[in-house]
Amino acid sequence: MAAIKVHGSPLSTATRRVLACLYEKEIDFQFVPINMATGEHKSDNFLALNPFGQVPAFEDGDLTLFESRASANYVAHEFADKGTQLLISGSNKEVAVLELWKEVEAHQFNTPSSKVVWELFFKPFLGMATDAAVVEENETQLGKVLDVYETRLTQSKYLASDNFTLADLYHLPNIQYLLATPAKKLFESRPHVDAWVKEITARPAWSKVLAMMNQ
Amino acid sequence: MAAIKVHGSPLSTATRRVLACLYEKEIDFQFVPINMATGEHKSDNFLALNPFGQVPAFEDGDLTLFESRASANYVAHEFADKGTQLLISGSNKEVAVLELWKEVEAHQFNTPSSKVVWELFFKPFLGMATDAAVVEENETQLGKVLDVYETRLTQSKYLASDNFTLADLYHLPNIQYLLATPAKKLFESRPHVDAWVKEITARPAWSKVLAMMNQ
Repeated sequence: MAAIKVHGSPLSTATRRVLACLYEKEIDFQFVPINMATGEHKSDNFLALNPFGQVPAFEDGDLTLFESRASANYVAHEFADKGTQLLISGSNKEVAVLELWKEVEAHQFNTPSSKVVWELFFKPFLGMATDAAVVEENETQLGKVLDVYETRLTQSKYLASDNFTLADLYHLPNIQYLLATPAKKLFESRPHVDAWVKEITARPAWSKVLAMMNQ
Repeated sequence: MAAIKVHGSPLSTATRRVLACLYEKEIDFQFVPINMATGEHKSDNFLALNPFGQVPAFEDGDLTLFESRASANYVAHEFADKGTQLLISGSNKEVAVLELWKEVEAHQFNTPSSKVVWELFFKPFLGMATDAAVVEENETQLGKVLDVYETRLTQSKYLASDNFTLADLYHLPNIQYLLATPAKKLFESRPHVDAWVKEITARPAWSKVLAMMNQ
């Protein structure tokens, strides 16, 4: 039995964030599907793993975590010597640059991109009507964030350094859904962002995450 | 001349987050006031420090950071041997618990609390009308988050452990503003949350942050 378990849904952006990290680190794990359509994530069993009732929950032996970024960050540190090196090692000043771009994802990119994904991908998927005003407001906001990324990506190949790190990985789930919507124009119109998006979505570890949809 | 500079506003929650950390660590720094009323945070000089045009920006010699949590996290690591120990040292599993509660602040607490602070504190302060529906929706959401905190704070004195850490500190700026609004009932109605709020807002370092308003 694998020591590491991920309880979640292959459709969920947060679940995909943790899975991407595990595949990058080449770590064996057990995937425990949670049926969100039947409200399994609000069941007592699941709430014992994550009191917020959101997928995913993560276990490594006696450690239980939730919050996808906390789970992925733990995996990157615990298995630092395996698979892709997703961290920056060095002085506190060097590490601070990785932490900075992780925070940018959380506090600049995540909210507008999640709102656009909800309006343009999940609402149509669920048969709900898209709110054009919400799309427009959040696409504008996301565009401003991507303008900063465009400049940043002229300075380094990836957001935090010339190597792929957690800061890039954290973006993958929302980017993947945006690519299936008209909002992909926000990437395509910015050449360095476009190249970065193509590069990180082509990673073999990410393909393994997407393939879980077909299992 | 101090090596560390914080460019920001003493009214800004994000600025206060970084200042609280510096005072806890007993680090000398230079405060550079940014006049947001005149749009100084959108000036070319400031955008060179933070391309997102938001306070604060942070400098330590040749390192420039933005995002308040990235800046505070750097200070906590760089000055680990000074002042209050804001981190958890130990195994990756022990550190992961701190990272988890930092992520909870970012992804569960921050959004609803910031929206209530905006509606109930800053909008009246600026002569704007409060949107009661937004208040109600976000107070409900914040209440659910605080229900989880209430349970958590029966298990440890602070969120991540029995010691005050960055995970608690990150909450201080929004909590302080909420205490000046009717939303303080959300704390007062939950005994462990109430005790935690009273404890962390009474810290001498936090008093020094609030005293900067009078300088």
